[in-house]
Amino acid sequence: MEQLTDFGEDLYETMSEGRFPVVDIPSRTTSNIQYDEVTRSYVLGDRTFRRAASNIRHLKSLSQLVWNAFFAKELIRGRRTSTLRDVYYSSQAFGIPFRDQKESDDVITDLEAVAGRPREEFNIVPEERSSIFGDLTIEYTVPGYEGRRIDLTAHPDGLMVGHALRTAEFVETGAERVFAIEKGGTFTRFIEERVHERYRAILINTTGQAPRSTRYLIRRLNEELGLECLILTDADPWGMHIAMVIISGSANAAHIRGLATPDAKWMGVWASDMTRYDLPSDPFTSEDFKRLTQLKKDIRYRGKLWQREIDKFMKLKRKSEQEAFSRYGLSYIVDKYLAEKMEEVESY
Amino acid sequence: MEQLTDFGEDLYETMSEGRFPVVDIPSRTTSNIQYDEVTRSYVLGDRTFRRAASNIRHLKSLSQLVWNAFFAKELIRGRRTSTLRDVYYSSQAFGIPFRDQKESDDVITDLEAVAGRPREEFNIVPEERSSIFGDLTIEYTVPGYEGRRIDLTAHPDGLMVGHALRTAEFVETGAERVFAIEKGGTFTRFIEERVHERYRAILINTTGQAPRSTRYLIRRLNEELGLECLILTDADPWGMHIAMVIISGSANAAHIRGLATPDAKWMGVWASDMTRYDLPSDPFTSEDFKRLTQLKKDIRYRGKLWQREIDKFMKLKRKSEQEAFSRYGLSYIVDKYLAEKMEEVESY
Repeated sequence: MEQLTDFGEDLYETMSEGRFPVVDIPSRTTSNIQYDEVTRSYVLGDRTFRRAASNIRHLKSLSQLVWNAFFAKELIRGRRTSTLRDVYYSSQAFGIPFRDQKESDDVITDLEAVAGRPREEFNIVPEERSSIFGDLTIEYTVPGYEGRRIDLTAHPDGLMVGHALRTAEFVETGAERVFAIEKGGTFTRFIEERVHERYRAILINTTGQAPRSTRYLIRRLNEELGLECLILTDADPWGMHIAMVIISGSANAAHIRGLATPDAKWMGVWASDMTRYDLPSDPFTSEDFKRLTQLKKDIRYRGKLWQREIDKFMKLKRKSEQEAFSRYGLSYIVDKYLAEKMEEVESY
Repeated sequence: MEQLTDFGEDLYETMSEGRFPVVDIPSRTTSNIQYDEVTRSYVLGDRTFRRAASNIRHLKSLSQLVWNAFFAKELIRGRRTSTLRDVYYSSQAFGIPFRDQKESDDVITDLEAVAGRPREEFNIVPEERSSIFGDLTIEYTVPGYEGRRIDLTAHPDGLMVGHALRTAEFVETGAERVFAIEKGGTFTRFIEERVHERYRAILINTTGQAPRSTRYLIRRLNEELGLECLILTDADPWGMHIAMVIISGSANAAHIRGLATPDAKWMGVWASDMTRYDLPSDPFTSEDFKRLTQLKKDIRYRGKLWQREIDKFMKLKRKSEQEAFSRYGLSYIVDKYLAEKMEEVESY
């Protein structure tokens, strides 16, 4: 709220002094995206581009940006949320023309870059998709729920991770770790097998690539509560990258701070687990192979573990799924695999 | 459980009398799928096909079916759930060969047809996707939660609709209706605008085509609690069909009873609402047009309202989204549109 107000006041001041306002926006081109060794995540470099009201070619996009900042402030003030799609249509109510949804989305990303904060903090939120369960009591800050608490084991199908959960205070936990799980089936299995009690864990179902609100939540759990974060995906290049984006962030979100959890660990399913546990597997498609080749060269994958597992995938040319452990019975993945991996993970 | 036990006992008895067991499975070919005027939903006709142990070509699929029935019984007895994928891999633990996932899924569908019940009742459940919020207190029946209650307004991001919710008892409600909503954005908007209080409603986010567990839950809310069910989708052929499948069921699930809610109503967004509310819209693609042409001929769309709206779409050749109402401000869809539609819906 403060940032948005400052942003507006700067513009206003400039104009009342009779000058044309300008806004400098960090550049998000590939050449300005860098891997930062200190924060161990993607960040933007120093390059910016300038939008000046004195340049007639900039006027439209500058107005769009300013309107977006205004709309975001209204959302926060009114304690309402909005989706990207809603923002696009809302612009029509204000007579602000956007060519299409993409133009509107791009301007919102510009605003994120100016503020260095994710749009979720401007109450522009994605559709909810992931869910959570485990030993954590939270206290809401959203309107109508201020001060109300809920224990995240209250509903055994899981609670949605949305705006209310994202902005809640953490009150109390007996958990020592977070398991971020790629798939709903495994998430449900873990709840049924009482992994939250047996391993003192909070369980998060990322449903594929973790949405940004979920990555933000994982980081908060790691940072504020000091919980260890362990990621369990399918054994394929896509699963590996789900883990990597939680750990090091994505190039797409390099303009935003606070989404990566550098201390999180990919606990499996590794390529080498496929051999070790003799898992049923499927051959790589050409897309799988192409993706793996990209990852091999990606700076985030320099580490020894990553390179070893990439090489193993290259050699096996096969992939496997979390559910493959069911060949040994439904509870094997918890009783045997998880137990063994927990010991292994401590040592790397 | 009783059905599965009977199924097994029949087989056993036949064999102990020295005869080859046979199983008659209702046929799911298109020609055996009928629209039933009494239940106002798709059902299977009388045709069956026979699997006989005396026929060497039937032996494999019969064994697969029997194993599946056994595995389902084990799941219920152990009070565990499983996904389709888990079942496929579990078959390997028992040395039951399936060629691929599809063959395994097909045999589970055969078992559904034999029992006339959805696989969810055998604890073979899909990944969770939809969510719920509103004035309803439920009591769980799943292990570890028996007798525990939760109020579905406890978490403002919504609770997942999974096995625990699906099988819960309804304890208390002040609600008079259910709004089934196609999209998460609108679901969140409705919660923020307190639609659950203002319209005494339970809100369900179907996230596109409603999963079967959600359709089952909607039917229960309509049948057990006598709640009116109103469906809100995008204004396009796909949205219209999301409503229709909740109302009349799908041909795919014609072998299962108890998923349709014939008294549910499609409240919008209608083609005629696009004109009436002057909504921003997009031109039809050729897929939209093709789909609409199919629906025009579909027996479920014979009703006056459906035909009128199909004709209107044909004429406009345009589609629109729920979010399009944001052009009049974020709360317009609740304050104005919903209020007007509620009156209109009472009269058709």
